[in-house]
Amino acid sequence: MSKKAAQKAAKKAEKELRQAAALAAAAAEEEEIDPLADKYGDTKLEDLQSKAVTGRKWTEISELGTDLEGSTVLVRGRVHSKRAKGKMAFLVLRETIHTVQCVVSMENVGSKQFVKYASLLSKESVVDVTGNVSNPRNPVSGTTQPVEIQVTELHCISRSTNELPLLLEDAARSDQDIEKAAKEGIQYARVLQDTRLNNRVLDLRIPANQAIFTVQSEISSLFHDFLRANKFRQIHTPKLIAGASEGGSAVFKLQYANDQPACLAQSPQLHKQMAICGDFRRVFEIGPVFRAEKSFTHRHLCEFIGLDFEMEIKEHYFEIIDLIGKLFIYVFNELNKNCKKELETINSQYPFEPLQYLDETLVLAFAEGIQMLKEAGFETDPLGDLDTETERRLGLLVKERYKTDFYILHRYPLAVRPFYTMPAVDDPKYSNSFDVFIRGEEIISGAQRVHDKDLLLKRIEECNIDPNAIGLQNYINSFSYGAPPHGGIGVGLERVAMLFCNLDNIRKVSLFPRDPNRLAP
Amino acid sequence: MSKKAAQKAAKKAEKELRQAAALAAAAAEEEEIDPLADKYGDTKLEDLQSKAVTGRKWTEISELGTDLEGSTVLVRGRVHSKRAKGKMAFLVLRETIHTVQCVVSMENVGSKQFVKYASLLSKESVVDVTGNVSNPRNPVSGTTQPVEIQVTELHCISRSTNELPLLLEDAARSDQDIEKAAKEGIQYARVLQDTRLNNRVLDLRIPANQAIFTVQSEISSLFHDFLRANKFRQIHTPKLIAGASEGGSAVFKLQYANDQPACLAQSPQLHKQMAICGDFRRVFEIGPVFRAEKSFTHRHLCEFIGLDFEMEIKEHYFEIIDLIGKLFIYVFNELNKNCKKELETINSQYPFEPLQYLDETLVLAFAEGIQMLKEAGFETDPLGDLDTETERRLGLLVKERYKTDFYILHRYPLAVRPFYTMPAVDDPKYSNSFDVFIRGEEIISGAQRVHDKDLLLKRIEECNIDPNAIGLQNYINSFSYGAPPHGGIGVGLERVAMLFCNLDNIRKVSLFPRDPNRLAP
Repeated sequence: MSKKAAQKAAKKAEKELRQAAALAAAAAEEEEIDPLADKYGDTKLEDLQSKAVTGRKWTEISELGTDLEGSTVLVRGRVHSKRAKGKMAFLVLRETIHTVQCVVSMENVGSKQFVKYASLLSKESVVDVTGNVSNPRNPVSGTTQPVEIQVTELHCISRSTNELPLLLEDAARSDQDIEKAAKEGIQYARVLQDTRLNNRVLDLRIPANQAIFTVQSEISSLFHDFLRANKFRQIHTPKLIAGASEGGSAVFKLQYANDQPACLAQSPQLHKQMAICGDFRRVFEIGPVFRAEKSFTHRHLCEFIGLDFEMEIKEHYFEIIDLIGKLFIYVFNELNKNCKKELETINSQYPFEPLQYLDETLVLAFAEGIQMLKEAGFETDPLGDLDTETERRLGLLVKERYKTDFYILHRYPLAVRPFYTMPAVDDPKYSNSFDVFIRGEEIISGAQRVHDKDLLLKRIEECNIDPNAIGLQNYINSFSYGAPPHGGIGVGLERVAMLFCNLDNIRKVSLFPRDPNRLAP
Repeated sequence: MSKKAAQKAAKKAEKELRQAAALAAAAAEEEEIDPLADKYGDTKLEDLQSKAVTGRKWTEISELGTDLEGSTVLVRGRVHSKRAKGKMAFLVLRETIHTVQCVVSMENVGSKQFVKYASLLSKESVVDVTGNVSNPRNPVSGTTQPVEIQVTELHCISRSTNELPLLLEDAARSDQDIEKAAKEGIQYARVLQDTRLNNRVLDLRIPANQAIFTVQSEISSLFHDFLRANKFRQIHTPKLIAGASEGGSAVFKLQYANDQPACLAQSPQLHKQMAICGDFRRVFEIGPVFRAEKSFTHRHLCEFIGLDFEMEIKEHYFEIIDLIGKLFIYVFNELNKNCKKELETINSQYPFEPLQYLDETLVLAFAEGIQMLKEAGFETDPLGDLDTETERRLGLLVKERYKTDFYILHRYPLAVRPFYTMPAVDDPKYSNSFDVFIRGEEIISGAQRVHDKDLLLKRIEECNIDPNAIGLQNYINSFSYGAPPHGGIGVGLERVAMLFCNLDNIRKVSLFPRDPNRLAP
């Protein structure tokens, strides 16, 4: 054990000793047996082990409204905050983003020890509270519910340690509030990203995070609902594959059974196209995508959720672009409608302008984008890719001219797209591909794919890819038995969530993010 | 190159030569220029490269009904079968499970070469057909649509090779039909499972497979819909983790960035519980699960789709069991309603009895199950696990007595459940856990979990697991900050689909199955 670790252990032991002493003192004080002792106290574990179905009904904190005034309720929640004042204790109970004040008063409970028990509860402990719903004389600041509970029973069902690695009130404070307080001479602790992620279970409890993951859940549900209503089937392609799906070095390798080398799929690209060759016509997938990224940007993860679809087209990739426009406008409209409260909650910690988008999605040609940049004084290679900075610049120009944060740029140079991209019919330097942007950042890549085997083999050769690579052969062969023209897209779920709310880091929208340095928790 | 490979290559070259000669002969015949040549022929690739938006409308084959009689339609489909008869060619076009006959007659097209072109099309090629919808004089046997098309234009947009590794009519034939024909002296080719899976893209096109994957897609959508309506949030837990999630040897290992050792998650167990500790209250996940299985059973895969949920409970794991009953009865009812045609299609190739289930799901105690087995003459260790054979026996006994293929067995012995399972309150030899069965096979494992950190550490020790194992520490720490009682389940999507339709092998319901010998296609 290192000296530092030993010191830490000693300090911890000391602290535990102090706590034990305090508890013993409290116990001693309680030795005079309280006739009301069954009304409060810690619930025994055995009473939480499915001992009986009692028929008791719990009321959700979110449901505590003035209509319940005068009734007795049983509520489960976390101790969000507490304060004692004379012969009273005030607990604020929390359930996700909802909070309610619970009043433990001598007047109601008739036991000093009861009040003390309440005031000694550690923050974040889970408690069951029984009490009467009442109208607070003065509105309770910092709670979401319009009523309070006059407590008659209080049982802690799961104690939190007092040693929280971060305080929720600190983690929930906006930068603006921290800076404002600093000007008034108050120094609030700023919870750094690594501290948050190392203690993600606590960090997830703050209102903004609760809201972010409701929004994220809603995005994938809306993606699902829209595509299902449009006759797409949900598929699940294998993540364990014989060769890299997108080529390049950013691939995780592993040993499969019988020592076969295997890779983790970098996208469902090859298999979703094979599903199209298998007559699935329209498919979508929501699943993890693995990239052995080496960079630490605000927008890259080693594992993220891909929202993919692939569809037959009749004659033009505009059929795909048309569907994307409808899909995302549906997603945005529904988010604004269904997640009003959540978006407000996110906004109060991480202020953002609502996403601006048009009823008819703006579609620009890549060359037009290059021209706009040029006119604004930014020369870019007309046959090169756009880097992140240039994409952002173009986003600003587009926003200025067209009043939209959401647009599609199509007809990219062929050289910057993967081998399976269909070249443009009139100019082989371009391709039938597109990117979709929110607030100047790319969220989607899509294209018409090569469905002709001869052209596919030609493109593979031109891109210096080995057509005999394991995994690629099966894909190539899929086009031997008649293949309809088709195309599709891949979206990063986290990017959509991040950019809809204009958050500054993709780790904020990943439940347990994975980057080159982070494989835990 | 091996001798065998060389022979094969030579044979292939010969065949190609023959084909080329045939084509040349056909071309020579056509040299006298056909004034109707623009009405038929192969569409050039450039015309499929998003050349123009023409405004043409395609009609789905499934929509071809008698209401369209007399109208001209444009249809895209595959050449399912063809026959020539005098100056006529008959093509059956297919679109997923729908088929329609197209008649190419001299009378309609006025060109001998046109009829010949049609009759020479290879099976599985994709064609665009224009023609008039008419009522066939006699019902067309072997097609699904009640009308036929009198062809006026015919263009092949993607040719299939003539060398199909399997014939769809063979792959689509039921065992019963093969045996019946054998009795009449007809020997049909039986397409073996490996041939199917090696050529999955073709195999997927047969009606039964089209139907199976519509049913599978529907199951995950219904799971999603029900849980979303019940306030569950969809989460995505990391698949790249620092240590095995379920312990044991069946784990895939890989090198993460910076040479950190990593595993592929064997279940979302630890992280979905951590989401509960993060106040998510009710979560579900639909995602891949990785098991480095070494066995080759009809019910194990190395990668499958887990349908997982986890929820807070108030006092009893019956709250979870109650929800499972409602969830699956919803899924079964909706499947029977929404997938009527698909279930018939599956049934015609793989005959099965419809699933029998009760309005109120049967819940039996494990000890009752043991007793039923004993009474039927099968002695089993009352504190051991049930093996697959015993589970099936019990399924038959349950079916006989209770008339249901779907039931829940709860209160399993603690010794056969994972460390995170909550022991029973009255007898530590048992646990608050359960399995769910369809047709005598386990599809779900579930339980109340240990939410108390001290008990968790005790259970980890009792199970001889190292509490310092990477990955486990973060999980254990999650219970330090107050944790509500909770529980949940994990279901294999493929198992549900397989057993609902009483299919004999899980590979039938996995799009591109992965087992120890199969990493492709």
